[in-house]
Amino acid sequence: MNLAILGSTGSIGRQTLDVVRALRHRFRVVGLAAGHNVTLLEEQAREFSPRFISLEGNGSSRNSVISLEGIEHVSLEEMASHPDVDLVVVATVGKAGLFPTLAALQAGKTVALANKEALVMAGAIVSEAARRGRGELRPIDSEHSAIWQCLRGEKTNDVSRLILTASGGALRDRSLDELRQVTPEQALSHPTWQMGRKITVDSATLLNKGLEAIEARWLFDVPLERIEIVMHRESIVHSLVEFADGSVKAQLGLPDMRLPIQVALCHPERPALGAVQRMDLRQVSPLHFESLDLRRYPCLGLALEAGHRGSTYPAVLAAADEVAVERFLAGRIGYLEIPKVIEEALDAHNGVSDPTLDDILAADVWARERVDYTIGAKT
Amino acid sequence: MNLAILGSTGSIGRQTLDVVRALRHRFRVVGLAAGHNVTLLEEQAREFSPRFISLEGNGSSRNSVISLEGIEHVSLEEMASHPDVDLVVVATVGKAGLFPTLAALQAGKTVALANKEALVMAGAIVSEAARRGRGELRPIDSEHSAIWQCLRGEKTNDVSRLILTASGGALRDRSLDELRQVTPEQALSHPTWQMGRKITVDSATLLNKGLEAIEARWLFDVPLERIEIVMHRESIVHSLVEFADGSVKAQLGLPDMRLPIQVALCHPERPALGAVQRMDLRQVSPLHFESLDLRRYPCLGLALEAGHRGSTYPAVLAAADEVAVERFLAGRIGYLEIPKVIEEALDAHNGVSDPTLDDILAADVWARERVDYTIGAKT
Repeated sequence: MNLAILGSTGSIGRQTLDVVRALRHRFRVVGLAAGHNVTLLEEQAREFSPRFISLEGNGSSRNSVISLEGIEHVSLEEMASHPDVDLVVVATVGKAGLFPTLAALQAGKTVALANKEALVMAGAIVSEAARRGRGELRPIDSEHSAIWQCLRGEKTNDVSRLILTASGGALRDRSLDELRQVTPEQALSHPTWQMGRKITVDSATLLNKGLEAIEARWLFDVPLERIEIVMHRESIVHSLVEFADGSVKAQLGLPDMRLPIQVALCHPERPALGAVQRMDLRQVSPLHFESLDLRRYPCLGLALEAGHRGSTYPAVLAAADEVAVERFLAGRIGYLEIPKVIEEALDAHNGVSDPTLDDILAADVWARERVDYTIGAKT
Repeated sequence: MNLAILGSTGSIGRQTLDVVRALRHRFRVVGLAAGHNVTLLEEQAREFSPRFISLEGNGSSRNSVISLEGIEHVSLEEMASHPDVDLVVVATVGKAGLFPTLAALQAGKTVALANKEALVMAGAIVSEAARRGRGELRPIDSEHSAIWQCLRGEKTNDVSRLILTASGGALRDRSLDELRQVTPEQALSHPTWQMGRKITVDSATLLNKGLEAIEARWLFDVPLERIEIVMHRESIVHSLVEFADGSVKAQLGLPDMRLPIQVALCHPERPALGAVQRMDLRQVSPLHFESLDLRRYPCLGLALEAGHRGSTYPAVLAAADEVAVERFLAGRIGYLEIPKVIEEALDAHNGVSDPTLDDILAADVWARERVDYTIGAKT
């Protein structure tokens, strides 16, 4: 199977290549794409000898940086839809993931999706592209992978609830008072998962879990009303599905992204993966499940509300959050101001019904400017 | 779908009829069979108007007891293999379940199996009957139902381990010293499940879990070496499957046998079952998983050993246990003598390789006599 890996130098991209290394006989890497880390991309290109490379973003010109014999420079969309590619791993961060996802699905490819924005911003459009192009969408996120695995052999119609688990993030045990003073460093120390900076802050605010609920709504065609979130400190039960007959299925594993990546790449097969440590139930015991205190997590409430409203609100949510988190990490705003500026943007926004891709992109730009302005006015 | 329910007056049989009552449009009860409780069987026959009835065991003659218009008296095997029957629930206790199970599978029926002895005594013969007759075997036991549900959409070849959960039974928190003095009443107070007397004692000794491991070996075609048992006090996670890629799937639910019964009857559909209470993860939290101390549970070690040896040893195990538990409940032997008399029978037995049904039945008779003799000699 021929793979294109978009975002190959990021955390998910590097772990995808780990999986490919362990299963070299199954996969051929025909495309690698990155935005920033030219040195690592070149190293990866030397190791995997892809046919295509893409280096977009950060203003670096297409052909200037890496020139290895026999490697062609293409755009993300060209790579994602090329006839030689079977499966596209979309592990780019931010809205840059949306266009190649659409291109790949329209071209009938299988897309293993780690990018959140594609489904959050444009879930209806992405789903429609998959239907029309006969593309297939597979989740990489551990929560969605868990649900997807639990749904194997089951019918979506029989689902009564999806239950997403949330670790509670880096700040789950701080008092509401303490949250006022939280530094970026504190928000970045996630208790169970090693992830990028932005997603780690989103895990602390639980905005991340709201985005995941919106994604789950599109991935599994289950209305948001039937998606619940429960706090599970240990990050061992990655998510659960309750069926109409009351039976509940769960997927468990040690927190290691290589497992859901491999599941997405190999579906429906489950080859042995030597690198992944086996879970000993006795060592991860006991497993706790708690209610989430929404007063501690206003971002989650905002995300679910934006998801319920639909239209361009999820795009505004995602864009406003991206700017707000960036400013928080830069020390420009406090931790508790993140939900405030997001809420302000959502309140000020006039949603478009049945938005086109252009409407969605316009909402994204609008939200970024709005948050910039709000923060500028405050400081 | 036309059902025959063998053992309709027992705990599983009555709960099967509860499920049928809730899903009357799906099922027609065409056969009811019981061994002891004539009054209840007659009541059930009046309610469900089956075409066939069977009243075997306890020496009651076939036609004498119940005579309702239009109801025909037949043997268990006739009922289980009758052309009008689609699915046979085998909820009879003891080796009486073996023959109708074989008859039904040979006739190409679907068998929902609650009886343990059929697979423990004659797993190879029952599996062969299913293959040849194109019958289908579905588990009713909560542990096996959990594994079966986790295997939906998965391949047996991808299974690396089956993990059976065990509550630890009524005596899990008593010291080894206290176990010497255990009364039948104490052994009968199971912490999480309401079940019959014999199976409740087998849950205390964990012999039950050994029988389940042997059954799982035949139901799912997974060698006994890959079946593990872990103690899980809460009886919420009913069992788990680990796959070759390290992913683990679990099935959860409140302890209520109506759920696995319904799953077996309705597979692959999952109609809503109003009567079953929904599980709230927060209310069942935390979930514990512990190692089993085999010194506390010698019967489990004996059962696994008998399973490994195969041949007629599992039949000897089951028969010896049945007699031993009966004598314990009658106050004839102490709790810690149960494993001793079973071990004595297993040690004295000369297994037959590739046993026929006759060999197995002979081993069963031999074991009962042996245990009787051993207990007689002691007391």
